[in-house]
Amino acid sequence: MQQQISVITLGVDDLERSRVFYVDGFGWKPVFENAEIVFYQMNGFVFGTWLGMALAADMIRKNERHPAPFALAHNVASQGEVQPLIDRLVASGGRLLRNGDAPEHGGFRGYVEDPDGHAWEIAWNPAWPIDEDGHVTFAT
Amino acid sequence: MQQQISVITLGVDDLERSRVFYVDGFGWKPVFENAEIVFYQMNGFVFGTWLGMALAADMIRKNERHPAPFALAHNVASQGEVQPLIDRLVASGGRLLRNGDAPEHGGFRGYVEDPDGHAWEIAWNPAWPIDEDGHVTFAT
Repeated sequence: MQQQISVITLGVDDLERSRVFYVDGFGWKPVFENAEIVFYQMNGFVFGTWLGMALAADMIRKNERHPAPFALAHNVASQGEVQPLIDRLVASGGRLLRNGDAPEHGGFRGYVEDPDGHAWEIAWNPAWPIDEDGHVTFAT
Repeated sequence: MQQQISVITLGVDDLERSRVFYVDGFGWKPVFENAEIVFYQMNGFVFGTWLGMALAADMIRKNERHPAPFALAHNVASQGEVQPLIDRLVASGGRLLRNGDAPEHGGFRGYVEDPDGHAWEIAWNPAWPIDEDGHVTFAT
């Protein structure tokens, strides 16, 4: 069995509001977009923001809109990049959860919610290599 | 700005119950584990299951336990692999949301919740190439 996740899909209420957060906040470029979904090509997988109603219908589940216990992390190359990115994400429609500070296990991180309440950790983790294609390797 | 997600972290209530789903269900091997977290090296990023209380404390947010509007997808190499994997995930503590069937845009997919309510799409998408390292490329 391939140890592989192909797509991360976040349900969103307002596609354009979400787009501002990812395109203006993170600076990412969509690879595809239409009236109900935006796809981004990531480091070895695809990231999608899809209207929550459509995602819920596809899953045959209620359109849950509350925050849930999960977080996506974007790691940056230096400690000094953490807070400026958090600030830019907040300026792009995000909500601050935690300003950047140093966790016990090392590095530096903070958290921001996207406009739909999905949590993003912005982290500098010097222990985990990231190659030029963005591929991240676990290391202790 | 690197178009990159470093880590997907799911909050879980019971680490061992979650481990059964991912190790026995998906057949994945942890790269690290201790009493509160299990990490898996994935295709260009790291996947973690972390006790929900610890994740919530790190995010400075309530420990939300309800399902949320997001889904992770694991794509398989053929249509015939979709339903058997769904069945194995259900047998490993998952909950069936949707048996495999064909969506309008092509391919074949179904959905299962993990033991903590996180949704997984199991899909065959012949349009999106997956290389031998598991790296997935968007294509229309």
